[in-house]
Amino acid sequence: MASLPTINGERLWSRLMQMGQIGATAHGGCNRQALTELDFEGRKLLMQWAAPLGCATRVDPIGNLFLRRDGTGKDLPAVLTGSHLDTQPTGGKFDGIYGVLAGLEVLECLHEQGIRTTHPVELAVWCNEEGARFSAAMMGSAVWSGRLPIQAAYALKDARGVSVREALERAGVPLDDSVRRQPLKAAFEAHIEQGPILEKQSKTIGIVTGVQHMCRNEVLVHGQETHAGTTPMAARRDPIRVLAEVLPELYRTAERIGPDARMTVGIIETYPGSPNTVPGRLRFTVDLRHPQQQQYRALRDALQQIVAEALARHRLQGSVQCYWEAPGVTFDERCVGAVRSAAGALGYSSMEIISGAGHDSCNVAEVAPTSMIFVPCAGGLSHNEAEQATPADLEAGANVLLNAMLSLARDGQ
Amino acid sequence: MASLPTINGERLWSRLMQMGQIGATAHGGCNRQALTELDFEGRKLLMQWAAPLGCATRVDPIGNLFLRRDGTGKDLPAVLTGSHLDTQPTGGKFDGIYGVLAGLEVLECLHEQGIRTTHPVELAVWCNEEGARFSAAMMGSAVWSGRLPIQAAYALKDARGVSVREALERAGVPLDDSVRRQPLKAAFEAHIEQGPILEKQSKTIGIVTGVQHMCRNEVLVHGQETHAGTTPMAARRDPIRVLAEVLPELYRTAERIGPDARMTVGIIETYPGSPNTVPGRLRFTVDLRHPQQQQYRALRDALQQIVAEALARHRLQGSVQCYWEAPGVTFDERCVGAVRSAAGALGYSSMEIISGAGHDSCNVAEVAPTSMIFVPCAGGLSHNEAEQATPADLEAGANVLLNAMLSLARDGQ
Repeated sequence: MASLPTINGERLWSRLMQMGQIGATAHGGCNRQALTELDFEGRKLLMQWAAPLGCATRVDPIGNLFLRRDGTGKDLPAVLTGSHLDTQPTGGKFDGIYGVLAGLEVLECLHEQGIRTTHPVELAVWCNEEGARFSAAMMGSAVWSGRLPIQAAYALKDARGVSVREALERAGVPLDDSVRRQPLKAAFEAHIEQGPILEKQSKTIGIVTGVQHMCRNEVLVHGQETHAGTTPMAARRDPIRVLAEVLPELYRTAERIGPDARMTVGIIETYPGSPNTVPGRLRFTVDLRHPQQQQYRALRDALQQIVAEALARHRLQGSVQCYWEAPGVTFDERCVGAVRSAAGALGYSSMEIISGAGHDSCNVAEVAPTSMIFVPCAGGLSHNEAEQATPADLEAGANVLLNAMLSLARDGQ
Repeated sequence: MASLPTINGERLWSRLMQMGQIGATAHGGCNRQALTELDFEGRKLLMQWAAPLGCATRVDPIGNLFLRRDGTGKDLPAVLTGSHLDTQPTGGKFDGIYGVLAGLEVLECLHEQGIRTTHPVELAVWCNEEGARFSAAMMGSAVWSGRLPIQAAYALKDARGVSVREALERAGVPLDDSVRRQPLKAAFEAHIEQGPILEKQSKTIGIVTGVQHMCRNEVLVHGQETHAGTTPMAARRDPIRVLAEVLPELYRTAERIGPDARMTVGIIETYPGSPNTVPGRLRFTVDLRHPQQQQYRALRDALQQIVAEALARHRLQGSVQCYWEAPGVTFDERCVGAVRSAAGALGYSSMEIISGAGHDSCNVAEVAPTSMIFVPCAGGLSHNEAEQATPADLEAGANVLLNAMLSLARDGQ
């Protein structure tokens, strides 16, 4: 390991803790939502840290921030890393922030050790990844990649009616109808796993080979409101009967499809919601995910069939609507290989892993070779003030990021 | 039938429609909540109709209104009928109102036909039966019967913070620490069934033999909030797993116990209620009812056991809390017999029936021999603007009420 460049793990940890003070919550978490004053305070702190490195700084019209260190081949496509500084309302200090500050460590290391790269190296801070204040997750990277029209993003409003356009204007970001996308040779993103797999397997590095397929569905069942005391069971049109059949069948299906299947019923609501009234209407959501397309489709099809059969059996009207779907992503073989090689060369234990959550890298992967690096987080907890990761794991992930990026940035091909 | 006195069915129907104009809603229903100006407007209309009958009128300190027609034995206990004029916020024109106006027809008939009774005959308008504005259903009859302390009733507040005490004071009702309860020989209440049984069985009269046992329970299940994408199914503490086991088991139990069992899951709520988060907490309500005490207890015990087993199987914490329980009521044999005889003598089809809902008669039955008379309502719908009943059925029910009351009021025993 002595022959490979490494980042400064103590500085990385100290900066994570400092950044965590901006929007710190009572229980050790962070509330620094996108395009708020706190968000811009966080960016300002980042730029103060980066100032001595002499990078070119650019904010694009959707609020993504880029710090660029030139390579010897000035016009060659860049090797980029990036993540986000915004958090959930009761988020942690690591989700997103780690990827940004690990990227800053890469720039610091190149600067301090005087390492010249052939390709430029860039650090991106993607705008509004969480989609908590403005309801489009991964917004900045989606606009940058061309997946989301910038006018659609500008029009998004927060709960108080403030639009993305207004929030950007207030912060002095120059607006434009189009976003200039710089050419990239490769992109990487370091991130906490947000799941328990690495911790359970006692691995330091997750070599992320892709992101699973996922969709969110809303199931509606229409019954008839009736009096709980006076209506015999057989005379009811009770939508909860459908739920009683669908729920166990969904769990059985997920089990049958195997341990990689994910099925989550996150919301269940009954209307009118009175203890002594048979509900007239039932609404619930079903989130389905699987890394393999075939099994993912089997899950989706099973949901349709299970609900349709239960509705038919109870002669009730209803529907299943898939209201959001994100196709799976297979990351670039060369980028995945660069992560694997770096982890091996540095002597860290590692395993291949599929990301269960979406990330800015899903958008970046649309237009550039991409991969990600995961490090363990305590108990798999994320989107939670109790989010935790160890200084040693965070340092290891940043070292893998540095060497994976270098392997592609040094090479002129 | 010619030899028996009968009420004026056309007048009854016409008055039901007139009373329904006070608080009429857009969809043909009624919103005339307890102790509002509209409620007192309804009582005023009733007293205008009753004025020519020369009854003694009394309002007690909890707002119950009594109209009394003396018998030849002036100090004998009265034969009473009564129900309520208040409605649900989106209630109908019949629930409660029918019982009051059928009682008024009884007084009208005695007056018009010059019928003298040995016992006094009384009509009661019980205050706040619905418990919609002030959250104590059957409030007036509960205070009258001694089941609810009057100070507790006075202290109840509506959503705007107005107390029952204030609402009564505004209406000029003299308050008092105690309620004088007049002695009763017997009590009857005519009511729409609020269920579909009479309609399905094509019967005109329900001879109500009692009110079923009932309770409301709240089930809580504590899990752990985790990310829907990153947490394998086996690593979750998912409270919906418990629901998936409990729901079908509850329906199976109700079926096993028989057609008289009622099991209603009216409210299901998940927290935090996000489509891509495994809920950290689940809450649902279970309303259980049965006419027979043994089967009712079996239902209640089964709920406890089913939830406990599911919690244990999934190693989750949780609880079942019975937060409201009303013991069943068996109505007085002589009063039930009077209803049966009147229905038979008048030539109406009839059947014995157990009330699925609570009524003022449950409170009255605590202190006096009581029974009820049900008539069909369309589709069993009630607590609904679409509530409907036919003029012929309503007339039949009032005729049964008249003759059942007469059979006990004429007799000096």
